[in-house]
Amino acid sequence: MDLNYHSKLLEAAVSEFSRLPGIGRKTALRLVLHLLKQEKGDAEALGNAIIRLCNEVKQCAVCMNISDNETCPICTDSSRDHSIICVVESIRDILVIENTRQFKGVYHVLSGIISPMDGIGPGDLTIPALDERLKQGGVKELILALSATLEGDTTNFYLYRKFHSPDLIMTTLARGVSVGDELEYTDEITLGRSILNRIPFEVKSEK
Amino acid sequence: MDLNYHSKLLEAAVSEFSRLPGIGRKTALRLVLHLLKQEKGDAEALGNAIIRLCNEVKQCAVCMNISDNETCPICTDSSRDHSIICVVESIRDILVIENTRQFKGVYHVLSGIISPMDGIGPGDLTIPALDERLKQGGVKELILALSATLEGDTTNFYLYRKFHSPDLIMTTLARGVSVGDELEYTDEITLGRSILNRIPFEVKSEK
Repeated sequence: MDLNYHSKLLEAAVSEFSRLPGIGRKTALRLVLHLLKQEKGDAEALGNAIIRLCNEVKQCAVCMNISDNETCPICTDSSRDHSIICVVESIRDILVIENTRQFKGVYHVLSGIISPMDGIGPGDLTIPALDERLKQGGVKELILALSATLEGDTTNFYLYRKFHSPDLIMTTLARGVSVGDELEYTDEITLGRSILNRIPFEVKSEK
Repeated sequence: MDLNYHSKLLEAAVSEFSRLPGIGRKTALRLVLHLLKQEKGDAEALGNAIIRLCNEVKQCAVCMNISDNETCPICTDSSRDHSIICVVESIRDILVIENTRQFKGVYHVLSGIISPMDGIGPGDLTIPALDERLKQGGVKELILALSATLEGDTTNFYLYRKFHSPDLIMTTLARGVSVGDELEYTDEITLGRSILNRIPFEVKSEK
């Protein structure tokens, strides 16, 4: 649909919206017309939030998470266990893991994953910064929480080769049947691994 | 999903995005993280396009279409037939009709439709401005191009009662079977109307 918008301003806004992932020109037009119908302040708030985000957001100097300050609230939180670092691919993974409320250590964002197909090598990631953190000492465990893909496994292997030492426990996320999944619909590789890595059966006391 | 974003800036941007129609907090987060990955200029361009749109876009003084200037390009186009006014509900309808390239008259945007259920009466629409245009003379035909809904029919009837005169042809869009539709799947009311309003069969010369 290549519409004539009769307004350069409308056309510019639709073009910019349609560059977002998953938003085509039709959806972009719908969003822009919605903004036009709103109070002027509402639409401006969106514009300003985007501009402020781009101009003011910082990268945490320690873990590379995004942050409003030099260091992110997770790295400055003294109640967290700074001896356990969970290595993740992106900021998004931190949000997801934090949401589980099961992890009280700190993070390190690799800002990507080794993927020769996409031309991403170890040099494109924040591995030197992680090296620096480990050299400062005090870290007991490195949890490799990357995707269960070929690229994730490659990166895990690279990190293991680089950082393994008798003083550092290196772990990775448990692979297995998802909670709530029926065995019938679990893929063979996952099911196979979950048999190999079977764990002692525990009866949890119900609350 | 009520995430702790660890960044007020990120949270503000996600909140603003999630106020858009059809965009939940998950999608909003995906869009915002996408913007963060882009070059700073790209994301700023979106923010600026939104702010400029809200602050600089005008309503055409004649037809109420949106416009970069006082009068929109359609109303200022002397090659168009200003004696035929097509009455539409919203700006979006103008875009759709223009896209058919079948209409060379001008428009009038009602900015809504009479809908007692939503508390929208004739007084909330741009009917006085349309009255003014008709009183200035020179208009031969008024095409009522509103939705084929109860509200559309109510508005059509209201406009007919208000404006009908021997000097003004009032027409509405043809209702009938959609081009490409199979009869089997056409609803009964549409099919019934298309039989009542049948048109002479024409053999069109193929190019």
